[in-house]
Amino acid sequence: MKKKEKKRVQASRLKIIPLGGLEQIGMNITAFEYENDILVVDCGLAFPEDDMFGVDLVIPDVTYLEENLDKVRAFVITHGHEDHIGSLPYVLRKINVPVYATRLTMGIIENKLREKELLDVTERRVVGFGDTVSLGSFSVEFIKTNHSIVDAAALAITTPVGTIIHTGDFKVDYTPVYGDAIDLMRFAELGRKGVLALMCDSTNAERPGITASEKTVGKTIDSLFQELRDTRIIIATFASNVDRVQQIINSAHKYGRKVVVEGRSMVNVIETATELKCLNVPDNTLISIDQLKNYPGSQTVIITTGSQGESMAALSRMADDAHKKISVGPGDTIIFSSHPIPGNEKAVTNVINKLLLKGADVVFEDVHVSGHPCQEDIKLIYTLTQPKFTIPIHGEYRHLIAQAKIARELGYGSDRIFILRSGDVLELGEEFAGITGKVPVGNILVDGLGVGDVGNVVLRDRQHLAQDGIVIVTMAMDRNGQLLAGPEITSRGFVYVKEADVLMNEADLIVQTAIASCHEGKNPDWNRIRTAVKTALTDFFWKKTMRRPMILPLIMEID
Amino acid sequence: MKKKEKKRVQASRLKIIPLGGLEQIGMNITAFEYENDILVVDCGLAFPEDDMFGVDLVIPDVTYLEENLDKVRAFVITHGHEDHIGSLPYVLRKINVPVYATRLTMGIIENKLREKELLDVTERRVVGFGDTVSLGSFSVEFIKTNHSIVDAAALAITTPVGTIIHTGDFKVDYTPVYGDAIDLMRFAELGRKGVLALMCDSTNAERPGITASEKTVGKTIDSLFQELRDTRIIIATFASNVDRVQQIINSAHKYGRKVVVEGRSMVNVIETATELKCLNVPDNTLISIDQLKNYPGSQTVIITTGSQGESMAALSRMADDAHKKISVGPGDTIIFSSHPIPGNEKAVTNVINKLLLKGADVVFEDVHVSGHPCQEDIKLIYTLTQPKFTIPIHGEYRHLIAQAKIARELGYGSDRIFILRSGDVLELGEEFAGITGKVPVGNILVDGLGVGDVGNVVLRDRQHLAQDGIVIVTMAMDRNGQLLAGPEITSRGFVYVKEADVLMNEADLIVQTAIASCHEGKNPDWNRIRTAVKTALTDFFWKKTMRRPMILPLIMEID
Repeated sequence: MKKKEKKRVQASRLKIIPLGGLEQIGMNITAFEYENDILVVDCGLAFPEDDMFGVDLVIPDVTYLEENLDKVRAFVITHGHEDHIGSLPYVLRKINVPVYATRLTMGIIENKLREKELLDVTERRVVGFGDTVSLGSFSVEFIKTNHSIVDAAALAITTPVGTIIHTGDFKVDYTPVYGDAIDLMRFAELGRKGVLALMCDSTNAERPGITASEKTVGKTIDSLFQELRDTRIIIATFASNVDRVQQIINSAHKYGRKVVVEGRSMVNVIETATELKCLNVPDNTLISIDQLKNYPGSQTVIITTGSQGESMAALSRMADDAHKKISVGPGDTIIFSSHPIPGNEKAVTNVINKLLLKGADVVFEDVHVSGHPCQEDIKLIYTLTQPKFTIPIHGEYRHLIAQAKIARELGYGSDRIFILRSGDVLELGEEFAGITGKVPVGNILVDGLGVGDVGNVVLRDRQHLAQDGIVIVTMAMDRNGQLLAGPEITSRGFVYVKEADVLMNEADLIVQTAIASCHEGKNPDWNRIRTAVKTALTDFFWKKTMRRPMILPLIMEID
Repeated sequence: MKKKEKKRVQASRLKIIPLGGLEQIGMNITAFEYENDILVVDCGLAFPEDDMFGVDLVIPDVTYLEENLDKVRAFVITHGHEDHIGSLPYVLRKINVPVYATRLTMGIIENKLREKELLDVTERRVVGFGDTVSLGSFSVEFIKTNHSIVDAAALAITTPVGTIIHTGDFKVDYTPVYGDAIDLMRFAELGRKGVLALMCDSTNAERPGITASEKTVGKTIDSLFQELRDTRIIIATFASNVDRVQQIINSAHKYGRKVVVEGRSMVNVIETATELKCLNVPDNTLISIDQLKNYPGSQTVIITTGSQGESMAALSRMADDAHKKISVGPGDTIIFSSHPIPGNEKAVTNVINKLLLKGADVVFEDVHVSGHPCQEDIKLIYTLTQPKFTIPIHGEYRHLIAQAKIARELGYGSDRIFILRSGDVLELGEEFAGITGKVPVGNILVDGLGVGDVGNVVLRDRQHLAQDGIVIVTMAMDRNGQLLAGPEITSRGFVYVKEADVLMNEADLIVQTAIASCHEGKNPDWNRIRTAVKTALTDFFWKKTMRRPMILPLIMEID
């Protein structure tokens, strides 16, 4: 009896389960579960950490969703950045449910699905701001916000136990470049009706003050164009920042420059944005890269990818003299309309150095604003919505802690603030709020076409190989353990062998001694020989070089 | 006749030859040559770039000095940071000439030489501020400056063609913690007499304004100590920043806290600084780490290494629960008295996240000032010394360019500004100034005990292995090319083999087909077989996985 009662009570609670995104930047994905319905907000990817050698990207383990497949109603997407949509092409293969998103967000998602041949098998629903969609026990309203990509939305998720506001990534921009300012009035209305919990962007929660309007960057760009009358201008920025591109195009048009767009991801986003009329390009402004030569540099501007120093992006190729159509030199001014994302500082500075060495001018300060709310913006959202509980999201742990500190300043006690970790099950009921369990979560590594076939073992091997290389010992033996050929020592990534004769000859002797020590007549123990060789060589190389290459003894048994 | 004349003219010029330090941060070393005398200023190391897998440190190629061994008179060292002294233990083995430095600088050098058993064979001369040493055609005066390490010096190098001022790394600190302010009066006197060239620190040349006094950090630390009455304090800072340590000790003493110093490099520097009386520790302030347990946390402070997130440093070990004597948790406040050096941002943020996850508080803002001059400080030095020529030093190319811009603002034409690259030979004579040649320079990689045995081939192999791992194919064949055993495929760092049966079985077939295609009866061409296997597997794996593991076919020939 008791058990049954308990079950009934639990059934009437809402579960909020982040499946990623709370220990790292990126890979945002959160499940909302009520009885037989699960709604998933966002489905992002993360970029690999520095020690994840060879890994292209990281996607979330969605075992929990797979195990509850019949409950999952939909993916609801807040905006079109990779860390919110990037895993869709992988996850939709397993969990094929409808995807809801605003217009540009859906356009970008569709580009991805088309590449992976998933467009036809995916049900897609474009939602307008102010629209509400019904998904099982949930109804979800899309609320206009501002962000560094057009058409970003916050979500008001109404559930039987109350309304949750999920801000997505956002900023407060009273004077946005495209479309309306964030719908603060709607936040206030929802607040007046009662908000059970607020899930708010923490990315900039350590930064005091407010985030400046995107239009302030437009003014800076305009004054740079005014100043740089005599040079060609190359501007690097984020491919998806349509508003930034719009402002660059506006200034180009005003000062009579033709615009070239360079870099595959930039071209894709701009095409989609233009089709959807989120971007307004005056006639005769865009030219193809091949037409560049028909205009003096002072009448052109190149908008390019590569603002983060990405080694394969167009700007890096220009800096490396590896770009087929554009070469940089004196008479060029390169503007970085971006800040380095943490971890990219060195890559960016390397590109800057290379561009300066070519004689170009480089401008890298104050041509960017953030797309995330600073402390006063966060306080504004809290004050408009006055949630019962708050769940800081989006950011590393330090950022979540920083938002929690803001909440405490605003009078929220610790019992009203939940800092979740991925996999935590937060239950909210009429008289209950607390973490009640944990579901499996994790990182699935994508390397080339492989999804999940690179795990900890492979990564550890790559790290070992990267550190000190590999030494392979090959031996052919008969079934009595008598050497027929070898031992031969081959190394890669260890020492420059041509200049390490002495070392390698000594190693040879060490191996032979180790093999001899194992000699046992018939039925030799191959494992014992392998271990003896490995131990002897490991010790020898450590003593001689203080390095620990991977030692791989390979025995060929000859009948 | 003409040749002889030319030689005479060249002989009367001064050559300034940077042997490192101009394309990277670190590895500062510059040769000054006049007729038969060479003087070397600094002898630093650089830390490896991210793609220099397994490399511990980078030292300069000093072939030019070796080739002119009989001319080299001395190493003159500006201060005790690794990027100015770190290569001495390697270079002195080849070029055993006297080393001149101020007191603490020499103390730190001696610690290094002792470790490498070079102390007894190295002639060391401690120089006081204002002292001048005579070195062949040169006389070198040590001038007091301020920096993030005590006893930093600028050098006035008087040569037959004029005086060169080399600032070393410096800042202008009117209220230094230890010793006097920078000897600006002496800079002015030298300026009045005439300075041929100024070689000035560029590190902060992109930053407007002035660099704040070290004492401002002391005030911040003091107010943090006043505020944090109830928690243990752990402060991470640079091991060599004796003034910072002094200020922490002062506050600890004032608020009745005992001090523990943790981290090998920190302990070493503090011991040396205390012996030399650069650090003043009140009695009964320092305690050993084992005594920590005898005091409540609120009465202790731990000064530790690891402010850059270095994985093996004491603070990282605390964050990882891997420190034997100190465990961090609620009731601890960790203060980062440092800024992340470019490239270390992510490592630092990882440590911060881990500390917060343990429930500790973390303070990471505004508890540091730079040790390098900002734009207005640089202008001050130019204005005091009024050099004929200027040679921006210390920093990446972007920083040198930034200082050149400052020089131009001050009225220096391009013909008076020399931006050198490592190896450039700048000649200065009475009627001549220009780059006349190039000497060999380069990076020598140190990995464990190996100096220079890891070069481009080994590095490329490590990068390849790190990216996609290795696949080894072993085959035993008789002299007719008949397979006696194998082919066997072994992989490391490629795929998780236990779950890649199908792939590896197919690979097996591919190899067998490749070998069969080479079959030619007697006198098989081993190279042809190896190439066939390599090509076939490379193609196969690329098609199946979009990865390119290193393929290593190994044939054992059995008689």
